[in-house]
Amino acid sequence: MAPSTIKAWTVEGQNGFDSLKFNEKAQLPKLGDKDVLVKLHAASLNYRDLIIPKGKYPFPMKDSIVPGSDGAGTVEAVGDRVTRFKKGDKVVTLFNQGHIAGSLDAQSIQTGLGGVVDGTLREYGTFDEQGLVSMPENLNFLEASTLSCAALTAWNALYGLETRAVKPGDYVLTQGTGGVSMFGLLFAKAAGAKVIATTSSQKKADLLKKHGADHVINYKDEPNWGETAKALTPLKAGVHHVIEVGGPSTMAQSLKAIKIDGVISIIGFVGGFGKEQPSFMDCLSNICTVRGILVGSRLQMEDMNRAIEANDIHPIVDEKVFELAQLKEAYQYMWDQKHFGKMAIRIA
Amino acid sequence: MAPSTIKAWTVEGQNGFDSLKFNEKAQLPKLGDKDVLVKLHAASLNYRDLIIPKGKYPFPMKDSIVPGSDGAGTVEAVGDRVTRFKKGDKVVTLFNQGHIAGSLDAQSIQTGLGGVVDGTLREYGTFDEQGLVSMPENLNFLEASTLSCAALTAWNALYGLETRAVKPGDYVLTQGTGGVSMFGLLFAKAAGAKVIATTSSQKKADLLKKHGADHVINYKDEPNWGETAKALTPLKAGVHHVIEVGGPSTMAQSLKAIKIDGVISIIGFVGGFGKEQPSFMDCLSNICTVRGILVGSRLQMEDMNRAIEANDIHPIVDEKVFELAQLKEAYQYMWDQKHFGKMAIRIA
Amino acid sequence: MAPSTIKAWTVEGQNGFDSLKFNEKAQLPKLGDKDVLVKLHAASLNYRDLIIPKGKYPFPMKDSIVPGSDGAGTVEAVGDRVTRFKKGDKVVTLFNQGHIAGSLDAQSIQTGLGGVVDGTLREYGTFDEQGLVSMPENLNFLEASTLSCAALTAWNALYGLETRAVKPGDYVLTQGTGGVSMFGLLFAKAAGAKVIATTSSQKKADLLKKHGADHVINYKDEPNWGETAKALTPLKAGVHHVIEVGGPSTMAQSLKAIKIDGVISIIGFVGGFGKEQPSFMDCLSNICTVRGILVGSRLQMEDMNRAIEANDIHPIVDEKVFELAQLKEAYQYMWDQKHFGKMAIRIA
Amino acid sequence: MAPSTIKAWTVEGQNGFDSLKFNEKAQLPKLGDKDVLVKLHAASLNYRDLIIPKGKYPFPMKDSIVPGSDGAGTVEAVGDRVTRFKKGDKVVTLFNQGHIAGSLDAQSIQTGLGGVVDGTLREYGTFDEQGLVSMPENLNFLEASTLSCAALTAWNALYGLETRAVKPGDYVLTQGTGGVSMFGLLFAKAAGAKVIATTSSQKKADLLKKHGADHVINYKDEPNWGETAKALTPLKAGVHHVIEVGGPSTMAQSLKAIKIDGVISIIGFVGGFGKEQPSFMDCLSNICTVRGILVGSRLQMEDMNRAIEANDIHPIVDEKVFELAQLKEAYQYMWDQKHFGKMAIRIA
Repeated sequence: MAPSTIKAWTVEGQNGFDSLKFNEKAQLPKLGDKDVLVKLHAASLNYRDLIIPKGKYPFPMKDSIVPGSDGAGTVEAVGDRVTRFKKGDKVVTLFNQGHIAGSLDAQSIQTGLGGVVDGTLREYGTFDEQGLVSMPENLNFLEASTLSCAALTAWNALYGLETRAVKPGDYVLTQGTGGVSMFGLLFAKAAGAKVIATTSSQKKADLLKKHGADHVINYKDEPNWGETAKALTPLKAGVHHVIEVGGPSTMAQSLKAIKIDGVISIIGFVGGFGKEQPSFMDCLSNICTVRGILVGSRLQMEDMNRAIEANDIHPIVDEKVFELAQLKEAYQYMWDQKHFGKMAIRIA
Repeated sequence: MAPSTIKAWTVEGQNGFDSLKFNEKAQLPKLGDKDVLVKLHAASLNYRDLIIPKGKYPFPMKDSIVPGSDGAGTVEAVGDRVTRFKKGDKVVTLFNQGHIAGSLDAQSIQTGLGGVVDGTLREYGTFDEQGLVSMPENLNFLEASTLSCAALTAWNALYGLETRAVKPGDYVLTQGTGGVSMFGLLFAKAAGAKVIATTSSQKKADLLKKHGADHVINYKDEPNWGETAKALTPLKAGVHHVIEVGGPSTMAQSLKAIKIDGVISIIGFVGGFGKEQPSFMDCLSNICTVRGILVGSRLQMEDMNRAIEANDIHPIVDEKVFELAQLKEAYQYMWDQKHFGKMAIRIA
Repeated sequence: MAPSTIKAWTVEGQNGFDSLKFNEKAQLPKLGDKDVLVKLHAASLNYRDLIIPKGKYPFPMKDSIVPGSDGAGTVEAVGDRVTRFKKGDKVVTLFNQGHIAGSLDAQSIQTGLGGVVDGTLREYGTFDEQGLVSMPENLNFLEASTLSCAALTAWNALYGLETRAVKPGDYVLTQGTGGVSMFGLLFAKAAGAKVIATTSSQKKADLLKKHGADHVINYKDEPNWGETAKALTPLKAGVHHVIEVGGPSTMAQSLKAIKIDGVISIIGFVGGFGKEQPSFMDCLSNICTVRGILVGSRLQMEDMNRAIEANDIHPIVDEKVFELAQLKEAYQYMWDQKHFGKMAIRIA
Repeated sequence: MAPSTIKAWTVEGQNGFDSLKFNEKAQLPKLGDKDVLVKLHAASLNYRDLIIPKGKYPFPMKDSIVPGSDGAGTVEAVGDRVTRFKKGDKVVTLFNQGHIAGSLDAQSIQTGLGGVVDGTLREYGTFDEQGLVSMPENLNFLEASTLSCAALTAWNALYGLETRAVKPGDYVLTQGTGGVSMFGLLFAKAAGAKVIATTSSQKKADLLKKHGADHVINYKDEPNWGETAKALTPLKAGVHHVIEVGGPSTMAQSLKAIKIDGVISIIGFVGGFGKEQPSFMDCLSNICTVRGILVGSRLQMEDMNRAIEANDIHPIVDEKVFELAQLKEAYQYMWDQKHFGKMAIRIA
């Protein structure tokens, strides 16, 4: 039985991490007739979560929002007319709660957890049954809590709507060791693709290789790594996919690496482009495609979870796991870039 | 019977249109065992043709090339082992002679007619049987000669490889009254789409409407025409496709017009992007796709020709038709932008 | 304001049309917090509706179900948490209420209106906001009420999930003048395809031509109409799509008409296959694809409605329109095959 | 340097394997200007090859044909205008020599090696440069010679034109241990899919597991293996793909195993369907798709070879390898079903 009050974080203002407030007696949210009450066991953090209390998030937000876009837990109760889940089911949260399938639209883009809709950094949450997905059976809660944003974004890059899907034998270029890039590596390898990854240290290079990267390029040693990557592909034709997570300088190299009709998927809003940026003209001269993507739909997440289960893929979670009460410390740890892979919060 | 000598143009040097040389006693090209000898009846001009003798063409070229990428004619003879055509068949030329299907590759991108491979501005030409396509039955030779580049580029924008295909009810944005844009309009209308076209004069607006445009925006009156176009679509969600033929200023508006997951196909290399250009970041913030495309494959051209025939689509050819001997005048006429639609050359 | 009691039909038993019961004081259904209360203005009938009270429907059914899978109306009220619609919106019903996108699954296949979920043959109904679609602006309620099953089935045949989509220049074969076939004709023509239709009378042939059929074959005169159809296509290669609504004899002809890699979409459960039926071996010897389809998803319906609006497509509704109270007469009229096109019921 | 005479088999008549004639002084075939002369090192056999001399092959054939549809070798010389290959390149043959991309058509279906076009069971052969594909670098000639038919057919089943492509997490059902089925298993596993395989002995079950099968069902123990397979899938929803190589009895089980919107690809013409066969009606009641396929195109073969190389996939070749001169013995050995996997012939 769920208690009547729960522990929950909210974001009160935009004064940095001090805007995070911990309420130990928050009301248990009401359960609508098509809602599911989830006892949350874990959440994971994204860069987006960090900049919300800093007031840097460029999208709409609700005051006093419960933060956290990613979460995993157990169904505690269901509304009278819920059909998709039952008590005891293990579930993960969908980021844009209204993005069931197809393209985002004006409504569904306003349903992001932890921004417009109350998120996962609390003991219990209610979610529309349409906004939850069954948890892969091979994962524990900490692992599963990392899927909502980073994993689904990487999946969308490789299996997007009406665009080239990755196939065995394709070459995929990933950048660095961030959450999306690591999922991109794992998914591409599971799909029979070859992966060329970039990084800046031998230690990270070793980790990338351990997780399946076929080639690792140290971009410090090889500033022209786009051409290096291209030269590694059959007939030096270039890579079929780039998961582009950087700014203008990485984009210039990605455009050198890409194959004719290859697809560069641009992820995230970190960084931004400076003055000497590549231009759209490069799309033409390289005869390639550039896609902007924003996480993904529930249908894609269901496909992804099936792939995770079938291939026993395990998200890479930083060894340091924080408790719910330590959220501020967790944010700071991640802000200081002390983590590797995804950062998870243990809730209960 | 083909004569032993033929009239043919070549490009000798890069001194402007004076580099065009007319040889009235050129040798009839030899017929390989898988070649087709075509008596050319018409050719059409592209901007690319004009800049080749001006030395502005940024792609590889062969010396003393026979210019002309677009042509239509009748099969006069076939090599011993030709199976796809027979004497008397009406045919149109494929631009990249080696681009049969799928993506261009390092070899096929080097097979452009009139640049690397001898083109269509001559009385007879031999072409590999793989580099010809049956002519739509509803067209005359002048009309058919306009299909190779402009039409196929527009078709590729709407029915590209592994990208969103136009469907009935989609909104397509075209720009101006150039060859590719007009074909884009005609194809989109045949496909049951709505077309929003831009132009700068009432006279051209009338022509666009006559050819099926649902909405015409005068971009001089409405410099922010991207938003105007978006507002014309259902739920103001934006257009599904843009056929982008301009430079940085049109691109900025196209990015305002585009729908989430919509596709902007960038065409041609006219113009170039200036300093205050939109950036790839806009792909992300608009969650859209930008594709560079270069004409298209034979498989696409066969599909296109079937659509042209089935819908009795007629290319828009300028009333002023030049004879083969008048090629320099034709180039100048087009350079001076006196034409509307495609410019055709009557060969015989 | 909705009244507290409404007029509604239910199916009580399986004794034929006498099992239809008209309750003039039925309770207004309750409005859940994500439900929409719709004042229904029109419904249309399908063959499926007729066989439900006859006990011939081979799928699961609920006792005392309100019949009617197709309906159109106006939103009268919305639950507290509804976001997709507001009072005054015009809407049409989705057949499988849970089939939002992608494939049907074990749950969504159990959500058919008029079979498992209370349907449209009543003055007011509540529907989950996920199970409604905006009505095309160019239609009246009677026309719009025909879209839920027949139109969406035809659309699914031409624009199915992960299968060949119809393109301009494709050839589509339709059979007869039933609801699905007529929508197939209208949609294929809007998409720039050529349509070959079969029928058995000159009068119907004239109607088919009036609605855009390029070729009409009288199957009584030409029992081997499959080959006739094939001979009408370019290079006698065969048709790209067949919308197959008949039984084993039509299927044998469809297999003669189909092109290599063409798609035969099998619709409906009318008829059944006899002894001398074609076999799956014919799929192989014809190198073609056969798909079974069951109506379609909400995403497909939204695409379809956009196409209907953009091309001002009007469903073909029989001139004879019955009132809600005359439902039994309407069923009998349709059972006696006195109708042409769709049969509509005016509700209020 | 190629000799002026070569050893070559031909099929003379339809008297069984005695119709195979070995000519030790056959003329070296002439080299057209777009032909490639290949020194063949290996060929592999297909069931089709066996029935050609028996007069059971239902497709067109040329008299005195050189048999053999599958081959691998080294380029010995190229015609004057060949651009795709050069001396020394390692190549494999395309089955339908004219099937470059897209669908087969009336011409390309008449270009099967060993049936209409002289095949691979000889020391040297000339092939149009369009009818060869680069050999995967990770294979030896014996292995590579098995790709032309069996492997490409399996690839086409999983990555066909305009149909559902296999994705990580999909379930694929294969039948038995024949060539196509084994390639289907290897490709599906490389793509991150789960494979359910059927067989009739523990020994073969062990081999299937060794090669990656996730589940093996002994169809002798479980005659209702279609339902067993379905029960092994997530939510018992059924398999996404069946590679159907049997006759009516396997088809009935495949229809039980298949998921909604799943695809059954029918392969080969072995067997045939008896009286109590499943009907097309089952496509509808299962809402599934059935495709007939015939090998595949060069574009597909290039994709396949890239996947083979990237994933270091090795075809399963029977340990018993025959020499070219022993062809009759090889045919008999295969006819007696003494082989496991593909049977290869060493040529030189």
